[in-house]
Amino acid sequence: MSKPPLTPLAQSLPASVPFVGPETQERAAGRSFVARLGANENVFGPSPNAIAAMRAAADQVWMYADPESHDLRDDLARHHGISPQNIMIGEGIDALLGYLVRLFIGPADAVVTSAGAYPTFNYHVAGYGGNLHAAPYVADHEDPGALIDLAQKTNARLIYIANPDNPMGTWHSGNILSSMINALPSNCLLVLDEAYIDFAPDGTAPEIDASCENVIRMRTFSKAYGMAGARVGYAIGAVDNIAAFNKIRNHFGMNRIAVAGARAALADQNYLADVLDRVAKSKARIANIAAANGLIPIASAANFVTLDGGRDGKFAIAILDALVHCGIFVRMPFVAPQNRCIRVSAWTKSQLNPFEQALPDAIADAKRSIT
Amino acid sequence: MSKPPLTPLAQSLPASVPFVGPETQERAAGRSFVARLGANENVFGPSPNAIAAMRAAADQVWMYADPESHDLRDDLARHHGISPQNIMIGEGIDALLGYLVRLFIGPADAVVTSAGAYPTFNYHVAGYGGNLHAAPYVADHEDPGALIDLAQKTNARLIYIANPDNPMGTWHSGNILSSMINALPSNCLLVLDEAYIDFAPDGTAPEIDASCENVIRMRTFSKAYGMAGARVGYAIGAVDNIAAFNKIRNHFGMNRIAVAGARAALADQNYLADVLDRVAKSKARIANIAAANGLIPIASAANFVTLDGGRDGKFAIAILDALVHCGIFVRMPFVAPQNRCIRVSAWTKSQLNPFEQALPDAIADAKRSIT
Repeated sequence: MSKPPLTPLAQSLPASVPFVGPETQERAAGRSFVARLGANENVFGPSPNAIAAMRAAADQVWMYADPESHDLRDDLARHHGISPQNIMIGEGIDALLGYLVRLFIGPADAVVTSAGAYPTFNYHVAGYGGNLHAAPYVADHEDPGALIDLAQKTNARLIYIANPDNPMGTWHSGNILSSMINALPSNCLLVLDEAYIDFAPDGTAPEIDASCENVIRMRTFSKAYGMAGARVGYAIGAVDNIAAFNKIRNHFGMNRIAVAGARAALADQNYLADVLDRVAKSKARIANIAAANGLIPIASAANFVTLDGGRDGKFAIAILDALVHCGIFVRMPFVAPQNRCIRVSAWTKSQLNPFEQALPDAIADAKRSIT
Repeated sequence: MSKPPLTPLAQSLPASVPFVGPETQERAAGRSFVARLGANENVFGPSPNAIAAMRAAADQVWMYADPESHDLRDDLARHHGISPQNIMIGEGIDALLGYLVRLFIGPADAVVTSAGAYPTFNYHVAGYGGNLHAAPYVADHEDPGALIDLAQKTNARLIYIANPDNPMGTWHSGNILSSMINALPSNCLLVLDEAYIDFAPDGTAPEIDASCENVIRMRTFSKAYGMAGARVGYAIGAVDNIAAFNKIRNHFGMNRIAVAGARAALADQNYLADVLDRVAKSKARIANIAAANGLIPIASAANFVTLDGGRDGKFAIAILDALVHCGIFVRMPFVAPQNRCIRVSAWTKSQLNPFEQALPDAIADAKRSIT
């Protein structure tokens, strides 16, 4: 028997992973990280009420979750002042981005993003055969005007922008995003990834007009709500666009325990406010540590701080490698010129202390290794 | 601005749901079911150790799960006596079937299944533009010979078979499956869905030859392990086929709590044996209830019993409707002649008693309504 062939598209794809997990690095190194500062996880975790709700739901795990996620959608609709029909729950933003690309992008369709923006989006575009076009960052910010221009030039079906941005932590005001939305070319859908929006200053999110058919917003319980391992994200958009997910999504894909946790997390806005405060303090400390070592912290509206090494990508990689060698898990932007930076997630003292301790030697090592 | 268009394929798809969830039915009826016997969930649930493991993992949910699911794959590899490279963990069999169809089926590629077999597989085939060809059941069994013949005739890339079968509960011996595998046409991959295999008699699973490139087996923690709401399934196959999932899967898609639960569930094989015993007793009771009411229980190797109404699909629907009207959630096969049956999941007395109580009137109602 000969081997069954993959589709031509699947054959053309690398067996790539958008990100290597810290556990993979730990297994390769034969030891655990002492500090897990690389994945923009929220160490402060979800509300104790959410943890309690998940524990309580554990013995109901024999039941499938409601494929409509009716109650969570209802909660979110109330929270945002929109209709449940404007909300699609999914297995994290990553899964929702995959569904969205599948719905709108066929082979050779043009898609626009920024050079060095979220790799998992690019992975999905490649996975459905789309042609990705990238506009450069300007002064470490995604460039709405350039994204619009490039979309016009390439007749793009999708534009991706994250606000606040990952991996730089920079952001635009909601007004700028609103102008961008008004300038969208015909037949073009803006994917506005707001994974980090809860950390951002008031006015960063454009007003939600859920009836706009040219914007899909992505939100998540992975970041501010501290539930990355739960896989609960949601899309906000016009009724028709939201309904289209039902054509292809994994209807029974949600974890029942996670949904219970998300509902309880959403209900505890006081805890969220407390987390935001702690994250802000942690970011200030990261910025101080960085500055004391000659790195330049870039102002961030997310739960991480991106630190400019002031030199090139090789220098930043050398710092990162030295940190990883000391058991400090951090990541860095992939693309020049942002790759002159390393990216450090907000954390408690327990892991920022080791980072503070390791950083001077890491920088010294990096300087030695590349001169 | 004009509305962004879906791809032509997405436009052609209905906003379908392979199954309507019981919660949707409850909301429509304005009341809860008194018995949840329709989704082949395992009310006996997972091992207490698994529940404890999930509770313990709840406060670690701020971390993403290991995208390689290394530890669970290791456990499963040991359990099955194969290599971790022969195993891909995914968000339930449903998600894995979606990935598999995406890898192997492009527009107009032929796929073979049985008429009335698992609708979610068909949903994925339609979703990627494949052409589905269906062989009829023979005496309520899927027909391996007919599936092979049809695959040869249509030059099919995939054949789907479930053993034991859902929705009929019937099964073939491992020897018959092995013969089927040996008879596979060139370039054809057999998808052997073994979601219910743990309930089946010894000898139902063909020996695992993980190096065979023409078979992918699907297993799950949703059925015998009692974790339907956790979304943990896995594929077993040749290294190259397994690695291909990495081209397209949602690497960070697994719920961290669910993975912890699955590991603990797998480790407690004594509990599993106890569950299988209780399921067998429950099935015997369902068969007795059915026989006492003139329905014919079909011998089942799964955790449900399919009951032959002895008449046509209209009669079976009328029984089902009458049961649902009394708050008893059951489902039934979609396609003639299997749709002369209703399907009842194994349960404890607490829900089989209401079923027993409701069935005589439901049958009487059905007889009245269609004569």
